[in-house]
Amino acid sequence: MALIVQKFGGSSVANAERIKNVAKRVVQTKRKGYKLVVVVSALGDTTDELLELAKSITDAPSEREMDMLLATGEQVSVSLLAMAIHKLGERAISFTGPQVGIITDPMHTKARILDINTSRIERALREGNIVIVAGFQGKTVTEEITTLGRGGSDLTAVALAKALRAKHCEIYTDVNGIYTADPRVVPNARKLDVISYDEILELASLGAQVMQSRSIEVGKKFNVPIYVRSSMNHTEGTLITKETRKMEEVVVSGVALNQNEAKITIFKVPDQPGVAARIFKVIADHGINVDMIIQNKTQTKTTDISFTVRKSEIRRALEAVRKAARSVRAGQVSSDGNIAKVSIVGVGMKSHTGVASKMFGALAKNKINIDMISTSEIKISCVVPGNKGKDAVRAIHKEFDLGNK
Amino acid sequence: MALIVQKFGGSSVANAERIKNVAKRVVQTKRKGYKLVVVVSALGDTTDELLELAKSITDAPSEREMDMLLATGEQVSVSLLAMAIHKLGERAISFTGPQVGIITDPMHTKARILDINTSRIERALREGNIVIVAGFQGKTVTEEITTLGRGGSDLTAVALAKALRAKHCEIYTDVNGIYTADPRVVPNARKLDVISYDEILELASLGAQVMQSRSIEVGKKFNVPIYVRSSMNHTEGTLITKETRKMEEVVVSGVALNQNEAKITIFKVPDQPGVAARIFKVIADHGINVDMIIQNKTQTKTTDISFTVRKSEIRRALEAVRKAARSVRAGQVSSDGNIAKVSIVGVGMKSHTGVASKMFGALAKNKINIDMISTSEIKISCVVPGNKGKDAVRAIHKEFDLGNK
Repeated sequence: MALIVQKFGGSSVANAERIKNVAKRVVQTKRKGYKLVVVVSALGDTTDELLELAKSITDAPSEREMDMLLATGEQVSVSLLAMAIHKLGERAISFTGPQVGIITDPMHTKARILDINTSRIERALREGNIVIVAGFQGKTVTEEITTLGRGGSDLTAVALAKALRAKHCEIYTDVNGIYTADPRVVPNARKLDVISYDEILELASLGAQVMQSRSIEVGKKFNVPIYVRSSMNHTEGTLITKETRKMEEVVVSGVALNQNEAKITIFKVPDQPGVAARIFKVIADHGINVDMIIQNKTQTKTTDISFTVRKSEIRRALEAVRKAARSVRAGQVSSDGNIAKVSIVGVGMKSHTGVASKMFGALAKNKINIDMISTSEIKISCVVPGNKGKDAVRAIHKEFDLGNK
Repeated sequence: MALIVQKFGGSSVANAERIKNVAKRVVQTKRKGYKLVVVVSALGDTTDELLELAKSITDAPSEREMDMLLATGEQVSVSLLAMAIHKLGERAISFTGPQVGIITDPMHTKARILDINTSRIERALREGNIVIVAGFQGKTVTEEITTLGRGGSDLTAVALAKALRAKHCEIYTDVNGIYTADPRVVPNARKLDVISYDEILELASLGAQVMQSRSIEVGKKFNVPIYVRSSMNHTEGTLITKETRKMEEVVVSGVALNQNEAKITIFKVPDQPGVAARIFKVIADHGINVDMIIQNKTQTKTTDISFTVRKSEIRRALEAVRKAARSVRAGQVSSDGNIAKVSIVGVGMKSHTGVASKMFGALAKNKINIDMISTSEIKISCVVPGNKGKDAVRAIHKEFDLGNK
């Protein structure tokens, strides 16, 4: 009997009605003859409410105590889902992450899974139960409760699918699957039937909110097939799997838009070995994440360096960058918050030529200026003016003929 | 350095302000030079809210899943209290019941504590922490989460005080201590400085809502001194301790009123050996708790039997009783929901005479008819008409001169 892991997010279990719907769906799968492990997130906005509660006590809660607090959210969901399944006449049993032996490192609020002891789940499955596991949480070897960070329930699901050698993992959300672009920006965006781990990782890092990246990395590492699908209907969804020959026929899988970055430029940086390293060390020491970096040597003895950071970190970033610039005797520092990053992703790029020029051409045709370019093996990103981001996505999506006919 | 166990109930931690107050109080005790273990209940109405949530899913939730659900309430409180204590600059660490090795039997929703492995608490105390433990919960030897039933946090506190050889246990509530009578009924009721375990057990079973009986039984068994006091002020409270010679000088410690019982009478029960046993076996088999039982043989061959049951169980009780009456060929069955039980409790009764007649005299003076009487070594209970219950308490309280001058 094959085993499936299903994961339901917070919006899928936001209230009693939805919990009952999830129970129905789970029972349907079970009655098709599968063994079933179900991972559940906290009800709706519970996690945010618990964060509020902590904030009403202190501005700087200890991370260990935050984990104690937050872990309760999923424990509520799993018990309620078990009750709802019982009501439909099926056996079910709920467990916390610690109870099923999800062992993590001790990095509270962002712990990493080290090991999963599956014996308790396997016993419960043998006894005919639908096994319901609280997502997002685990314990250390010293029995401390830990949480896995935002999106951690995805990680719980994929890691359990790996540990239990599941046929596949199903991630239920409020969208039908993964699209060629954000349907709110591109109305005829098409749902993809299949996409590779690498493509979805690039899309995720480029601003497409699909699944937590770490869970896809784990899926990739252990080759766990992942279906992303809706909990509201029975549409097939999108399969995330390893790269196949067939995928390479498709040049571009999707277009992503990220409007949450700002650009910083340091002018007249002395063109000497080690200078860039010193600058980015200072920035990293301030805990600022840098994304695209472009260095373009135009003068003889100096160069201009541009890079993007998260808009939310721009003030702290500028402080750090000014300090770094002074320390290497560079020139002025400027920033631009009015940018958008548009990216195309596709494993087919490896074997197809002319992809970049086609992308640039689409932007040119629409009189959209390109400010920065960065590429990887399966991705091309362009920074364009902030108010042109959505137009750029639509133009590229059309140029590569990605939409529904 | 002496160790104290403090327990704060749900009303003491109902919101952020009150949690901060509890933190202040706890830190004060710690700074007086005590080692401190603090047991906390769920915030305010959390437990009721969780029960509602379960009810919105199913009418008959599994008890195991109820325990998964309910145990989250205390886990929220302990983490928040730890945060509040950190903010005051003291070390604190929170634990769930399972984490500190409170091992129970597997009777979900009403588990009994079998053992407490104190090593983790002791390590945390040695490290200078105020240790905060979730009340009301434990785990079985197979790592199932259990809860201890209503008032279970009291039990957690007293059991921890015993296991850790604490100097004493302090139970914080919203009243100043234990009174000679309910101050809402008797305005000049006096707070007792000290009372014996047996007296408080009788008062609890007689309807005075003080502390969970099981926790007092544990306190008595292991001779743990228990202070009941208010979390809102610094009044001394009442010490519950073992019986002393001095206590016997006081004839009556308190007067209790129970208006939650109803009386059932079976007429013309055949006066043969074994008949009463058969009747009460049928009633017990229906899960009905019986309190006072009075049998008074007035006729030659039959007798009337009266007893009291909880008002909330009267319908189920009557069904069972009618069945029992038929099976022993007894006569009619009648019931009376309009009764009140008034009781006096005091270890001094053992060595003083005339206590009962003084009580009956007080009732007679006030023209209150006595319907049933039952006595134990340290208690006398009278059933009176329901609308006379409060008058009876006041009359007896005055007769024994129990109030403040």
